[in-house]
Amino acid sequence: MTANYQKQGTVVTLQHKSRILENNPLGDKFIRDVIIYLPPEYDENHSYPTVYALTGFTGRGKMMLNDSAFAPNIADRVDTLINTGKIKPMIVVLPDCFTHFGGSQYINSTATGNYEDYLTKEIVPFVDENVRTIKDRNFRAIMGKSSGGYGALAMAMRHSDVFGLACSTSGDAYFEHCYLPDIPKAFRAIKNNPKALLDKFWDEEAKKGKDDFSGLNIIGMSACYSPNGTDFDLPFDTLTGEIKQEIWEKWLAHDPVRMVEKYAENLKSLKLLFIDAGKRDEFFLDVGARILCEKLKEHNVPHFHEEFDDGHFNISYRQNRSLELISDSFST
Amino acid sequence: MTANYQKQGTVVTLQHKSRILENNPLGDKFIRDVIIYLPPEYDENHSYPTVYALTGFTGRGKMMLNDSAFAPNIADRVDTLINTGKIKPMIVVLPDCFTHFGGSQYINSTATGNYEDYLTKEIVPFVDENVRTIKDRNFRAIMGKSSGGYGALAMAMRHSDVFGLACSTSGDAYFEHCYLPDIPKAFRAIKNNPKALLDKFWDEEAKKGKDDFSGLNIIGMSACYSPNGTDFDLPFDTLTGEIKQEIWEKWLAHDPVRMVEKYAENLKSLKLLFIDAGKRDEFFLDVGARILCEKLKEHNVPHFHEEFDDGHFNISYRQNRSLELISDSFST
Amino acid sequence: MTANYQKQGTVVTLQHKSRILENNPLGDKFIRDVIIYLPPEYDENHSYPTVYALTGFTGRGKMMLNDSAFAPNIADRVDTLINTGKIKPMIVVLPDCFTHFGGSQYINSTATGNYEDYLTKEIVPFVDENVRTIKDRNFRAIMGKSSGGYGALAMAMRHSDVFGLACSTSGDAYFEHCYLPDIPKAFRAIKNNPKALLDKFWDEEAKKGKDDFSGLNIIGMSACYSPNGTDFDLPFDTLTGEIKQEIWEKWLAHDPVRMVEKYAENLKSLKLLFIDAGKRDEFFLDVGARILCEKLKEHNVPHFHEEFDDGHFNISYRQNRSLELISDSFST
Amino acid sequence: MTANYQKQGTVVTLQHKSRILENNPLGDKFIRDVIIYLPPEYDENHSYPTVYALTGFTGRGKMMLNDSAFAPNIADRVDTLINTGKIKPMIVVLPDCFTHFGGSQYINSTATGNYEDYLTKEIVPFVDENVRTIKDRNFRAIMGKSSGGYGALAMAMRHSDVFGLACSTSGDAYFEHCYLPDIPKAFRAIKNNPKALLDKFWDEEAKKGKDDFSGLNIIGMSACYSPNGTDFDLPFDTLTGEIKQEIWEKWLAHDPVRMVEKYAENLKSLKLLFIDAGKRDEFFLDVGARILCEKLKEHNVPHFHEEFDDGHFNISYRQNRSLELISDSFST
Repeated sequence: MTANYQKQGTVVTLQHKSRILENNPLGDKFIRDVIIYLPPEYDENHSYPTVYALTGFTGRGKMMLNDSAFAPNIADRVDTLINTGKIKPMIVVLPDCFTHFGGSQYINSTATGNYEDYLTKEIVPFVDENVRTIKDRNFRAIMGKSSGGYGALAMAMRHSDVFGLACSTSGDAYFEHCYLPDIPKAFRAIKNNPKALLDKFWDEEAKKGKDDFSGLNIIGMSACYSPNGTDFDLPFDTLTGEIKQEIWEKWLAHDPVRMVEKYAENLKSLKLLFIDAGKRDEFFLDVGARILCEKLKEHNVPHFHEEFDDGHFNISYRQNRSLELISDSFST
Repeated sequence: MTANYQKQGTVVTLQHKSRILENNPLGDKFIRDVIIYLPPEYDENHSYPTVYALTGFTGRGKMMLNDSAFAPNIADRVDTLINTGKIKPMIVVLPDCFTHFGGSQYINSTATGNYEDYLTKEIVPFVDENVRTIKDRNFRAIMGKSSGGYGALAMAMRHSDVFGLACSTSGDAYFEHCYLPDIPKAFRAIKNNPKALLDKFWDEEAKKGKDDFSGLNIIGMSACYSPNGTDFDLPFDTLTGEIKQEIWEKWLAHDPVRMVEKYAENLKSLKLLFIDAGKRDEFFLDVGARILCEKLKEHNVPHFHEEFDDGHFNISYRQNRSLELISDSFST
Repeated sequence: MTANYQKQGTVVTLQHKSRILENNPLGDKFIRDVIIYLPPEYDENHSYPTVYALTGFTGRGKMMLNDSAFAPNIADRVDTLINTGKIKPMIVVLPDCFTHFGGSQYINSTATGNYEDYLTKEIVPFVDENVRTIKDRNFRAIMGKSSGGYGALAMAMRHSDVFGLACSTSGDAYFEHCYLPDIPKAFRAIKNNPKALLDKFWDEEAKKGKDDFSGLNIIGMSACYSPNGTDFDLPFDTLTGEIKQEIWEKWLAHDPVRMVEKYAENLKSLKLLFIDAGKRDEFFLDVGARILCEKLKEHNVPHFHEEFDDGHFNISYRQNRSLELISDSFST
Repeated sequence: MTANYQKQGTVVTLQHKSRILENNPLGDKFIRDVIIYLPPEYDENHSYPTVYALTGFTGRGKMMLNDSAFAPNIADRVDTLINTGKIKPMIVVLPDCFTHFGGSQYINSTATGNYEDYLTKEIVPFVDENVRTIKDRNFRAIMGKSSGGYGALAMAMRHSDVFGLACSTSGDAYFEHCYLPDIPKAFRAIKNNPKALLDKFWDEEAKKGKDDFSGLNIIGMSACYSPNGTDFDLPFDTLTGEIKQEIWEKWLAHDPVRMVEKYAENLKSLKLLFIDAGKRDEFFLDVGARILCEKLKEHNVPHFHEEFDDGHFNISYRQNRSLELISDSFST
């Protein structure tokens, strides 16, 4: 609230019409906003490194610009980091990969849409065309929190040719700890009727119980990890709550911890791989991060690992740490 | 998320330089954004009724435009209400009365600034000058939630010449129930050092405990209700936690329940006075509303009173109810 | 759980038929167990100092002997203190002053019964007759937690001729902080029908909501502090939740903080007055204790005051501290 | 609290010196109380059916006699059921299988002691010798809640020759849902030092955090399910929190859901098998019960299954249901 004479960047909102998302099975929008932060004194004759910042489940890029009493939004944050010399000027892109089920995990799914393709094949070229980016994976980073951290890891593993730097804060990993405890709650909340639960979330006046968020989460992840045509399979028996092992195996194939081996070479090629999480993370993503880093170590993948004294929520200040590491890595 | 062909209003952000807030004791900004929603097909040859919407403590107007997964922001909400014919086109103004202490309660205070004057003497005329409002108290409404509801009540009582309609959702009232339970918590959190607690809130990485929010709340309210020059008096002894009766009396003088008698004539002059609250309000503002309505009844002040099945948070859907009642009253 | 070769005391249960409780308005039992702990090697030719230990609301003496995995009951505790030489052998009495409303606060009330008389005029003489006590107020202590602490304070104030030592752990004091926050919750829970709420508590299968405990508490305290013949007055308007000032004043007359002045001479006559509470007490009884001690200081009443790092529950280990101080005071 | 003229049973406490528990690895007591309830008008010339009631983790038989304001203890409960004719007179035995780690699950373990042998080979004969039981498995039932329900199931499976009737209320089952969510919490709480955590529980003044109970639980279960000589293996890597699959498999071998197949014939031989759980059980034991019953169905094991509207705690009123079903089965 104090007087603020720092130079401010500019936020531009471009509209992009996606051929990949057209006819997506959920009927979600295929013309979406692409929100781009341009640094102060952005110069059309100059080129800038770029960071893609991904939101968590139930989020979309726009939310990273939300106003809050005591925490700056990502644009204010980047402004301050640039003004104080902690990072070099850079472009920040906030994509929208939200779906009717709460999110896409930034991956391709026959049940939600091909958001991985959307991001890598449409949005990155679109951004490169429209603003003055350095069109080089070594100057293109991806970062995110929670499901956004998961997305960053997925990109780092499968698209290291597109993104040369990746930061995952509290990214979904080790599904036994981060998702499995939600299954019995989801069993109670869903009661063989995922649609009724979804409708409740889309009716703002409907009262949501505590287990309902677990239910939404398990529905959303099922659509991403165990799609079945345009429908999806829940990882549990809807009459008893017993885990369906064959579906759960499909989920595990998407667990970053299990993907390290397959994508070790891509991961080794990164300029930066940073993994952090709060030591009191409510979804135990600090534990997931430890296990992930152990696998990275086993496969000789260079990476940084940090833990901080906090939980899963209200930790946008950790964006600073990722942005600083990214800026440093851009420069080396 | 479904295709949305409704006509959309326009949000404009004007900058206003306040003489009233200049040199405010907290050094808070005196050049502030005034956010104005103009209805779809806003026509410069036409004049529109206006609603001022006030946020709760720790909020400012901008936040009412925040994006959220499952709840529309106020602009989307008004768009839909207009498109579906539930309300007539209107202008919506979102003022910023935030302070370093978390808020101003929209009243004048030597410790924070004269926000009541700012709103009534500067912002209203400024809006009337800059957009096509109907310059008549019968077409100027004020609504808000929580501290915003308090602000709406204060305006209704002291400025019925400016605002002819008022809606308070979960507005602060009956201070014994809504504030007093926070005092022993604030005693623990503040420990004779309000500044240290405030600093914690302004350091986004600092861990806030549960009692800290009570502490911030009591500091904020003290600055509004019991200022002492540019400083303020806490309503409790900082060594023992005992309530200081003479300070508490100053607070009570600002309790809407106690103000009804004094301002009964102004209240009677309103075209609309609507008071609602959730039956499970965490600050017992439903109980406060009942007591307030009882006083209104005793003084023959016409009003509507509703209770809804919810708590204090995530109830922005109740804006619809206020907006509809306001629109109906504009028309009669 | 390790081998335990310490000498053990003996617990005897005597039955006492009360003339004072006979025909009590609630129809509660008037023949009650008086549970007496006799120290190891209790000798009929010897006389022992005596401690009366009072339970909190919804408790009765018997519960202090309940078995628990990790916390000794009061008999085990006293055994260990005696065996380790931390206290001298003493008799411990566990009275039953429970009522259909959850408790009696150990005071006389036309709505519940004359429990203050019962304790001082019947139980103390009965104990003195039946076991080898030292029949001298300087060797008769009273201690208790929560409502039991309140009872100990009430006895210390009005019956210092009977009890020459008193220890209150987390005793009810400063009613604005410990009871007033329960009033709006009680308003919601009681809804003008105290009987229905009580029936819920007496039907073990009935589901109790969180506010219900506040409701029971306010009913119980009303019966003690604001009886009205054999009925009682609630301290709030059952339609609006507004505090009834004239009833609240009756409550305040029973607040230890307000009683210090009247009973200062009695309090000064005590051999020991000890007041402690947990710094995170959920009912703010640490704050109440501070305010109480401030009043004691103002009236030059000698006392010890301690705060410990805990809340209101699971603090039976603090009995050790009271018992040690009592034993020390018996010896001087 | 109302006058109670019902006939009361008698509780006798016998001391039993166990050869099986002598030299148990934890140094826990081997001379233990065996608490036996004898029905009103117990007649030495008559023989009675017997029920063994097992407590949950951190409990021992004695606790089932604890006094509570609004819920009768098991002796009062059986008194009332007999007096109202809802059950026939029966003997109730409350064994003590507590350990330094919080419990034994009523099974044999090299790390805690052979509590399964203790119960079936020592306590049952000891009871049959000392009181007038009908020495026939068809008149000997076992019931319990939580870990006590687990114990009842284990007995039903492996000792149907001893116990011909079994009731499990909220018994541990389907370990993925009831234990696995505790593992990451236990990882945080234990930090490679189980002893330090245990010491915290045995120091009544030490503050226990929320995760600490999960830590104790996982330590206790490890000692029962994955002992390693007189020590035990935790089911997770103490550096990363990753599940150790080979240890987890040892746990699963003890999961009632997985044991049905092996013991199907024993289970079919029972006169009564009753399984119930609360629909809001905090450990999802209602889900475990559903899965267990599905397995029973697959193996054609007759059983009753009920769900009730409650959680895991304060459900001793469900003892009535088990006792009534047991009494009915004794009679047929």
